[in-house]
Amino acid sequence: MTTTPNNGAKNHKWVYLFTDVAQAEQAVGGEWEGVRALLGGKGANLAEMTRIGVPVPPGFTVTTEACNAYLANHNTFPEGMWDQVLESLKDVEKQAGKKFGDAKNPLLVSVRSGAKFSMPGMMDTVLNLGMNDETAASMVNLTGDERFVYDAYRRLVQMFGSVVMNIHDEAFEDYLTVVKKEKGVNSDTELNAADWKKITEEFKKIFKQEIGKPFPEDPFEQMKLAIEAVFKSWNGKRAIDYRNAAKIAHDLGTGVNIVTMVFGNMGDTSGTGVAFTRNPATGEKVLFGDYLMNAQGEDVVAGIRNTQPIAELEKDSPKVFAQFVDIANKLEAHYENMQDVEFTIENGNFWMLQTRDGKRTARAEIRIAVEMAEEGVISRQVAVQRVKPAHISQLLHPQFDLEQKKASVQSGRMIASGVNASPGAAVGVVAFDADLAEEWGKAGKNVIMVRPETKPDDVHGMLASKGILTSRGGATSHAAVVARQFGVPCVCGAEALNIDVKSRIMTVGESVVREGDVISIDGSVGEVFVGEISMVEPDFERETYLQTLLGWADEIRRLDVYANADYPADARRAREYGARGIGLCRTEHMFFQEERLPIVQAMILSAPNSDQEAVELEKLLPFQQDDFYGIFKAMDGLPVIIRLIDPPLHEFMPDHEQLLVRATELRAKGDNPKELAHVEEMMHAVEALREFNPMLGFRGVRLGILRPGINAMQARAIFKAACQLVKEGVDVHPEVMIPVTGHKNEVKIIRELVERIGKEVMAEENVTLKYKIGTMIELPRAAITADEMAEYAEFFSFGTNDLTQTTFGISRDDAEGKFLLEYVETGILPANPFQVIDEAGVGYLVDLAAKKGRATRPGIEIGICGEHGGDPQSVHFCHRVGLDYVSCSPFRVPIARLAAAHAALEDLGK
Amino acid sequence: MTTTPNNGAKNHKWVYLFTDVAQAEQAVGGEWEGVRALLGGKGANLAEMTRIGVPVPPGFTVTTEACNAYLANHNTFPEGMWDQVLESLKDVEKQAGKKFGDAKNPLLVSVRSGAKFSMPGMMDTVLNLGMNDETAASMVNLTGDERFVYDAYRRLVQMFGSVVMNIHDEAFEDYLTVVKKEKGVNSDTELNAADWKKITEEFKKIFKQEIGKPFPEDPFEQMKLAIEAVFKSWNGKRAIDYRNAAKIAHDLGTGVNIVTMVFGNMGDTSGTGVAFTRNPATGEKVLFGDYLMNAQGEDVVAGIRNTQPIAELEKDSPKVFAQFVDIANKLEAHYENMQDVEFTIENGNFWMLQTRDGKRTARAEIRIAVEMAEEGVISRQVAVQRVKPAHISQLLHPQFDLEQKKASVQSGRMIASGVNASPGAAVGVVAFDADLAEEWGKAGKNVIMVRPETKPDDVHGMLASKGILTSRGGATSHAAVVARQFGVPCVCGAEALNIDVKSRIMTVGESVVREGDVISIDGSVGEVFVGEISMVEPDFERETYLQTLLGWADEIRRLDVYANADYPADARRAREYGARGIGLCRTEHMFFQEERLPIVQAMILSAPNSDQEAVELEKLLPFQQDDFYGIFKAMDGLPVIIRLIDPPLHEFMPDHEQLLVRATELRAKGDNPKELAHVEEMMHAVEALREFNPMLGFRGVRLGILRPGINAMQARAIFKAACQLVKEGVDVHPEVMIPVTGHKNEVKIIRELVERIGKEVMAEENVTLKYKIGTMIELPRAAITADEMAEYAEFFSFGTNDLTQTTFGISRDDAEGKFLLEYVETGILPANPFQVIDEAGVGYLVDLAAKKGRATRPGIEIGICGEHGGDPQSVHFCHRVGLDYVSCSPFRVPIARLAAAHAALEDLGK
Repeated sequence: MTTTPNNGAKNHKWVYLFTDVAQAEQAVGGEWEGVRALLGGKGANLAEMTRIGVPVPPGFTVTTEACNAYLANHNTFPEGMWDQVLESLKDVEKQAGKKFGDAKNPLLVSVRSGAKFSMPGMMDTVLNLGMNDETAASMVNLTGDERFVYDAYRRLVQMFGSVVMNIHDEAFEDYLTVVKKEKGVNSDTELNAADWKKITEEFKKIFKQEIGKPFPEDPFEQMKLAIEAVFKSWNGKRAIDYRNAAKIAHDLGTGVNIVTMVFGNMGDTSGTGVAFTRNPATGEKVLFGDYLMNAQGEDVVAGIRNTQPIAELEKDSPKVFAQFVDIANKLEAHYENMQDVEFTIENGNFWMLQTRDGKRTARAEIRIAVEMAEEGVISRQVAVQRVKPAHISQLLHPQFDLEQKKASVQSGRMIASGVNASPGAAVGVVAFDADLAEEWGKAGKNVIMVRPETKPDDVHGMLASKGILTSRGGATSHAAVVARQFGVPCVCGAEALNIDVKSRIMTVGESVVREGDVISIDGSVGEVFVGEISMVEPDFERETYLQTLLGWADEIRRLDVYANADYPADARRAREYGARGIGLCRTEHMFFQEERLPIVQAMILSAPNSDQEAVELEKLLPFQQDDFYGIFKAMDGLPVIIRLIDPPLHEFMPDHEQLLVRATELRAKGDNPKELAHVEEMMHAVEALREFNPMLGFRGVRLGILRPGINAMQARAIFKAACQLVKEGVDVHPEVMIPVTGHKNEVKIIRELVERIGKEVMAEENVTLKYKIGTMIELPRAAITADEMAEYAEFFSFGTNDLTQTTFGISRDDAEGKFLLEYVETGILPANPFQVIDEAGVGYLVDLAAKKGRATRPGIEIGICGEHGGDPQSVHFCHRVGLDYVSCSPFRVPIARLAAAHAALEDLGK
Repeated sequence: MTTTPNNGAKNHKWVYLFTDVAQAEQAVGGEWEGVRALLGGKGANLAEMTRIGVPVPPGFTVTTEACNAYLANHNTFPEGMWDQVLESLKDVEKQAGKKFGDAKNPLLVSVRSGAKFSMPGMMDTVLNLGMNDETAASMVNLTGDERFVYDAYRRLVQMFGSVVMNIHDEAFEDYLTVVKKEKGVNSDTELNAADWKKITEEFKKIFKQEIGKPFPEDPFEQMKLAIEAVFKSWNGKRAIDYRNAAKIAHDLGTGVNIVTMVFGNMGDTSGTGVAFTRNPATGEKVLFGDYLMNAQGEDVVAGIRNTQPIAELEKDSPKVFAQFVDIANKLEAHYENMQDVEFTIENGNFWMLQTRDGKRTARAEIRIAVEMAEEGVISRQVAVQRVKPAHISQLLHPQFDLEQKKASVQSGRMIASGVNASPGAAVGVVAFDADLAEEWGKAGKNVIMVRPETKPDDVHGMLASKGILTSRGGATSHAAVVARQFGVPCVCGAEALNIDVKSRIMTVGESVVREGDVISIDGSVGEVFVGEISMVEPDFERETYLQTLLGWADEIRRLDVYANADYPADARRAREYGARGIGLCRTEHMFFQEERLPIVQAMILSAPNSDQEAVELEKLLPFQQDDFYGIFKAMDGLPVIIRLIDPPLHEFMPDHEQLLVRATELRAKGDNPKELAHVEEMMHAVEALREFNPMLGFRGVRLGILRPGINAMQARAIFKAACQLVKEGVDVHPEVMIPVTGHKNEVKIIRELVERIGKEVMAEENVTLKYKIGTMIELPRAAITADEMAEYAEFFSFGTNDLTQTTFGISRDDAEGKFLLEYVETGILPANPFQVIDEAGVGYLVDLAAKKGRATRPGIEIGICGEHGGDPQSVHFCHRVGLDYVSCSPFRVPIARLAAAHAALEDLGK
């Protein structure tokens, strides 16, 4: 908070020359933030550039304190301020060799607002203060360029009128249009000196007409009014609204910068431009921007004439260019960042009018950070810190061209939004079933598979698609889980969509999308568009700057990063992305594959613990063993945590309602008793497995205990694969994980089972193997009794998806489409707890369990394998509570590596 | 553990006369438990009776230490023991005026085993030790009753042979049968002196034949062998098995009691009997039992002759009876409990042979405890402590006649078991739908409604039924919740039952039950029987002893007891049962009533927050207001906690599958487009409400926030009813409870809504009202953040049903029929956590939340309203963690009152 010191203190310093920056720094106690607060961002930067020897036109800043004092004191300048302005002006006159209001060699200045934070709604710039009829005439003499002088003069009247006196700009512009029409010309450039002189006169009339007073010819009056206008604009409605929205304090005040005018339109050795010190799209270290000789800054912005790329300047004016490069380096070294600058060349002299950190793409941010570190401008830590997780996210997912997307939104082609279930953008033709999606996909078409919701037997179609769109289900729905697993962009639960699979049509409001029509979906934000939006594709291997940066991040972070991967290909990708282990391998996903599902179903339908069950399990064994073999091999030397079967068995069975409909149809028609009998049999089997709340039902370890054959088969597959690889000289680190546990006895029973199988297999294979057995912590009771769980578990892995569901008592699939979004939007919850870990609730349990687990078993390995493992804020949390690793989808591994480094830097107070 | 002191110590005391009890007490340090350990239960009691002046035949006890020493020392008596036996025998001879083995006036004794705990498998009693040919002859002289003497002698040979020497009893009995056949008689009583004499001789031959040695004529040899046999029986297989099963230590040893024989069969002034000091069925204070003059104890037990009720003894022998009454009072005063005794009258002299605490019914336990306290025999605290919750439970639910039930089980009429969802027994005819159940019920039939599962529109049938039986769903299924609510016995999830509603038939294995057939169900244990089992009905008002006892319990307990009640009638019953408030009034149960359900459905189908919704809510208002009016009135002066709407809306809608089947049928037939359109519309509405995991879905406060009109209507109904009653002079204490909260902001929002309505209504009615607003704590997150919840909640009520579901991640409906029973049976879980609170997991959260809640709001009112509120063990837990009250179903209020008193007594170390 900026306090307003004794307004009456005559000696209080209200005005700082750009050359006085050291004094300003002293006044605020040496902090750069303090200087920015006192002088405003623009003023501070102008002063700072002055200090480091960058050519800035002479000038000074009236402080934000003065603004506050003015506003507090019924719009009266604080005592001494105006005198200090006049005094500073004298200094500036001395530097510029001109005098403000002088008839012979007049100094012109600009007045610009400048608060601590850049802020829309504040007063615009007013140029050319100091002009009046007298000084204009003398300037004509001095420059010999009457057209330039009256163009400048009319600009002052127009700007002063509209910006300072609040006259509608149309009042001036309308007249300008009339003149051009009269003269039969299109552009301002075609108007001559006489035209501008006449226009200046007319503008003054308009001014008087609108204000009731003549245009102030007195330059000091001009300056006084301009400064007051800046001060008042701090409390303008737009500024207040903006500050409320952006949560900027209302007592900061704005500074006022008075800067000597320099002109880029004084002939062929003059010019003006804007530039970045590096390429803001790629990050390449070259000056990047546009300029225009013999032009004013406004002309560049207005696009009245075609600008030149900065590279041309090197040819046009090698000396000026060299000076510019030198200044750019100086600024980067000083600000330790890429700069976005405005400059003017006046008669061959180079002047900087503004500098600030340049906006850039994610790609550029990463390259700039890496190269600046390599150049020694910043440290590697700063480089790591500067790159944000969102930058990596942007880089690594296919994404829409932003301009095109914006255009699509503006033209009303965005038809729905849903849950951002799997990130990335996708464009393709709509297919309403999996078979068609697969057919088209194999034929080389880009397909978006659209379904009300998906089922296991849709997976072949999903894998052949570029994107998946559903109208039901949340971020843990089948569609979402599979999509994330395979990195397919997915929007789900887009409830506005009316998907009529039978009629092969999707409607929403007036829009109708037919099968084969092109749509675009953005899984990163959950948006759906009709038509095509072009895309930018990622490629991690080619992202060498990112890889360098993440290498540095790895040196900084304490938290390890694993990946969730179910297939050898996933595991290889995860390793490529820098994963140091597999934190979650979901064995049941393998069950869904086409050739296996019938065996799985036969196994389920056989009596528990029967011979028939054993026969079917025996058939599954080689499949599982192959999968594990591939994953272990890909992760040579690194740990692989394999989770025993988790979901309820009905997930592997056909849909009950489909069976019911078919049975009812057959009954109504009565002509096919054989099929009816078959359908009814299957239906009864499915009914026996049905549950009211499957998420809280017969799954995970409960299934493992009551149908131990399944877990035994899985354990056998794990040990057989591992033993085989040991013989082949591969370094395997299997870890067997038990899901959905809530009591230590559950862990004990399965632990004993797995150990027994392990002994058997090792004896059969004559191999000795090191392995671990641990448990998921995904139910509150498991967390609360973690001390007991640790008696039998050698590692914990927090399943924060289920832990969040049970801790909140919220089914994600049901909630996200219904009340959860509303909860987040209206601020009932600060964030979606399925995306960002809920520290007060779920986090409490994670922290408690980690502490209790370590109390029982000090070296216990603890990680997290829920989706939060890839969320930066949640990674910070995991670091803080001292977990050993986070595990996330392969695509999010780079983000987690970076976030883990950031968390470690936070510990260092950075 | 009993230690064996130095066996070689000659002076160690191995034998105690009954008159030496003070010495025994000293030897063990004064503790009665020590005396029992040293002398065994029987010996200690015989000695104790001797001490308090109750006539006991003279005798002594060989200690358990002697037994242990004998067994430890290769079956050798410890040094000095036999000498002490002989010495003690001399003392006994002196008291009895007879001599052991004496030819003229022989002393006969019995030998009985007696360990610390009564224990099957130990050696049986041997009577009449001391007889041989010589003493028998002299006894004939003394008594002049040859038949008596040889009957006694042959008993000795038979018992000694079978019990001490392990001869199969058939060897003797077979011969007896032969003799009776030869003589053409049926019963022993028809045999004369000569017969018995001959039989004695023959028994001795059998003895010699079996053992290879003659029957020992030497009385001291008899005694030695008998004592050794008792010692050895301690390590017999049956005894060891029993101790293993009953978890009795193996090193206790058994005592041996040597007791002077007294004979009830010495003529008409002799007799024998067994009796309770009070009626063990009713508890009435009268001697209760049977006796037989001129008979031995065995004859009473064997039922050879018809026994007389004890009351007859008063007429037969008023003097002896008076002595008996006197002894009974003495024993009760000493043991502070009702006694079960054995006695013998020998020639008009009354002898006690055994006393122990008598077994009794629940009803008797309660009356005895109350009357003994009123008599001053025990304190009120002891009376309260002595009655167990199970006693009340037995008393207050209709229950089957135990003998009849046992017979039904034995005859294979128990056909299934399921979840004991609502306690009590019921008998009735099977009705397979609610309408028929209601029709029959109104016609006066006792009906058991049988359904695969029940729905809200079945409630009218359920209310008209005596019992409910389902094959699906657990203890929180609709059937179970409604049944408990109304105290209707219910067994649900009896999965073995194949209920075919269409064919009006239920099968299980071979059994077939048709509509109208009689079945019996026991909701207390979850059992189903075909046919009728007769019942005993409860009536709280008439249970005056129980009421007295519970009044004492109320004075002792700290924990308050509320009831869960949804209707005025429930509230009145709850109050009658002693509830001091309503802890949970479930508003939505009112929605299910016949006339209201269509309005509720119309409300649900109207757009959220629309005018139509408001219209329907307006229609519901008077219904709710009436309900609240009745409940508040019934609870005049006491708090009533009303929970706002809790379940997901689809529970109020028709079943989706029924609609789907109907729609499919109509589509297949294609002849009724109008009905099809209607069914499809309804179906789509239900689909929009469907959820994957409704338990974790759009319900409770989530519904309250997104459709605030419902809660607003409920709040209005509450305040209007309360204001009306205030005007009528009734003392109302409404408390509004918000369900399914997980974040303080949810509480805040609904709190503000309720407060606003409260203000409005109070202004309209011009009444000032005190009320509270609080929240359920039924999700782990609510418990963990209870400090924050308490910012807006004036009370907490733990919903331990849902809290258990979420903490364990177990859906009760799905689990109880599947894995939960197996978990409990195999010991994975110590108990069903839905019946007994899981202290380590759920209890941790309850304790945490109570502490956190009080930290924020010291006076916050905290209770529990889950079903655990009526479970004694859980009530103890609630007491320990310092809750203010427990709330349970009205029927369980008496149990909770007692359990709360027990918990308070525990604090006092009692």
